[in-house]
Amino acid sequence: MNLTVAVIQEAIGSNDKTKNLEATSEKVRKAALAGAKLVLLQELHTTQYFCQVQDPAIFDLAEPMDGPSRQHLEALAKELNIVLVGSIFEKRTAGVFHNTALVFDGQEGLVGYYRKMHIPDDPGFSEKYYFTPGDQKRDGQNPFKPIQTSVGKLGVLVCWDQWYPEAARLAALQGAQILLYPTAIGWDPEDTAEEQTRQRDAWTLIQRSHAVANHLPVLVANRTGFEYSPDETKPELGTQFWGQSFIAGQQGDILAMSDTNDEGPLIANIDLGRTDHLRRIWPYFRDRRVDAYEGLLQRYMD
Amino acid sequence: MNLTVAVIQEAIGSNDKTKNLEATSEKVRKAALAGAKLVLLQELHTTQYFCQVQDPAIFDLAEPMDGPSRQHLEALAKELNIVLVGSIFEKRTAGVFHNTALVFDGQEGLVGYYRKMHIPDDPGFSEKYYFTPGDQKRDGQNPFKPIQTSVGKLGVLVCWDQWYPEAARLAALQGAQILLYPTAIGWDPEDTAEEQTRQRDAWTLIQRSHAVANHLPVLVANRTGFEYSPDETKPELGTQFWGQSFIAGQQGDILAMSDTNDEGPLIANIDLGRTDHLRRIWPYFRDRRVDAYEGLLQRYMD
Repeated sequence: MNLTVAVIQEAIGSNDKTKNLEATSEKVRKAALAGAKLVLLQELHTTQYFCQVQDPAIFDLAEPMDGPSRQHLEALAKELNIVLVGSIFEKRTAGVFHNTALVFDGQEGLVGYYRKMHIPDDPGFSEKYYFTPGDQKRDGQNPFKPIQTSVGKLGVLVCWDQWYPEAARLAALQGAQILLYPTAIGWDPEDTAEEQTRQRDAWTLIQRSHAVANHLPVLVANRTGFEYSPDETKPELGTQFWGQSFIAGQQGDILAMSDTNDEGPLIANIDLGRTDHLRRIWPYFRDRRVDAYEGLLQRYMD
Repeated sequence: MNLTVAVIQEAIGSNDKTKNLEATSEKVRKAALAGAKLVLLQELHTTQYFCQVQDPAIFDLAEPMDGPSRQHLEALAKELNIVLVGSIFEKRTAGVFHNTALVFDGQEGLVGYYRKMHIPDDPGFSEKYYFTPGDQKRDGQNPFKPIQTSVGKLGVLVCWDQWYPEAARLAALQGAQILLYPTAIGWDPEDTAEEQTRQRDAWTLIQRSHAVANHLPVLVANRTGFEYSPDETKPELGTQFWGQSFIAGQQGDILAMSDTNDEGPLIANIDLGRTDHLRRIWPYFRDRRVDAYEGLLQRYMD
């Protein structure tokens, strides 16, 4: 039940998708050479993080589910015979775009996808402008349903989803064996160092907590590097992505963690058998008070 | 919006409730003298942790909601003019017992109570034998409804509840301003040091994560000391309570933390105004996908 996994943390210097995919592929090859059977890429890894501003021309960066980025990643997963989780800016149709994670399984090709459900929107992260939230149901099923692969059922979630215990739980209740979070999160350069530390600590903590609450390993790939605002009149919107990608075990224990500026694969071994063992010792699922949870379906219980 | 709060961590050497309440009261007085307006006691603080074994005679330790422990705590809260959160083994009627937290507000006396909803049961923690789970509704309302006091709305939860993001969320969705966890958790002496560390780290982490997910301060009072098993034929059931009571801010930041064996009040200042500020910067509640959460009401989505 041991599995070698990798997450790839990168700085992205341009919107040249071909070049970026090539650079990413080199890191994925390195991870596969080191034995990784499952590799997670960061959110929107083919371009810079374009949501700093609202610009209709940026929709040109999107591509259909079956576009060149998917083709590239699919070929890479086949070449290396690994499970690879990538991320694209998906054009579903004119006027409907998604932030979509794609899951490739070796020779099987694309075996599933996940369209980001929780969409943020705040200064420098104008995602509600670009991304339609994932559908309430996906092929008639709960959209948090994990994706079956040869290395296990993957609970793939994206960035802002990471702040929601509900999302992790719904993946776990549908049999997820690993939680994965492609991410692009960084600091507002205007915040104090103390506030920046609190924010990154909170971010690490909440994702480790999904491991604890569900006894699942958690993989997080975050972007690194500074990206200038595309709006030259507002350079203050630049974002320093904070890196610190990590791999945690089923008790939230950190197995491997990147530094702020590291680039390349971060590799660890996870033991999928720990989940069954820990759920015997700490049987949270047995005792959930599902008879008293209906308030969770309300926005606010006022 | 600043509030001085205290949590009391204690070793309990006997089942002499009068003596234990006196000792606890001394620590509460110390906390009040230091300026605490809200004081949290640990779970079942009037006796040793009796759930190590199943013994019908132990039900003699229970008392009605209006029993001597409540009277003692109520008088103490009036004397010190503080909000005090205590914990009793409640006899509701013959055959129906609860693990109940009581909230006293200065001259107002008892202003609310919470009956533990999630009940554990594992070797050394035979709680399903002693405690009927809290009702699905309490006075017609969601049982996680916070309790209004002069220092704010208190989301009072008890021990095993702490592993459930659902419980914290339901308190928050009903306006809780502070989350409080009276607790009695410890190590199985047979576990390795590494496993003990992972368990305590996971316990700290999951509770800090409720702060992060809901932007609420979190107070945790845990028991300390070693308690021998009441079953003399099974001394291996003894439990080393792991202490480490703590007070966390709204980003999960640790404001104060006790050591394993500390006794007495742990004091910190919390700023209730941080909640509103942080929810503007990180508006998780805005983006919850309540349209896609109904699976949370299922035991398992198979």
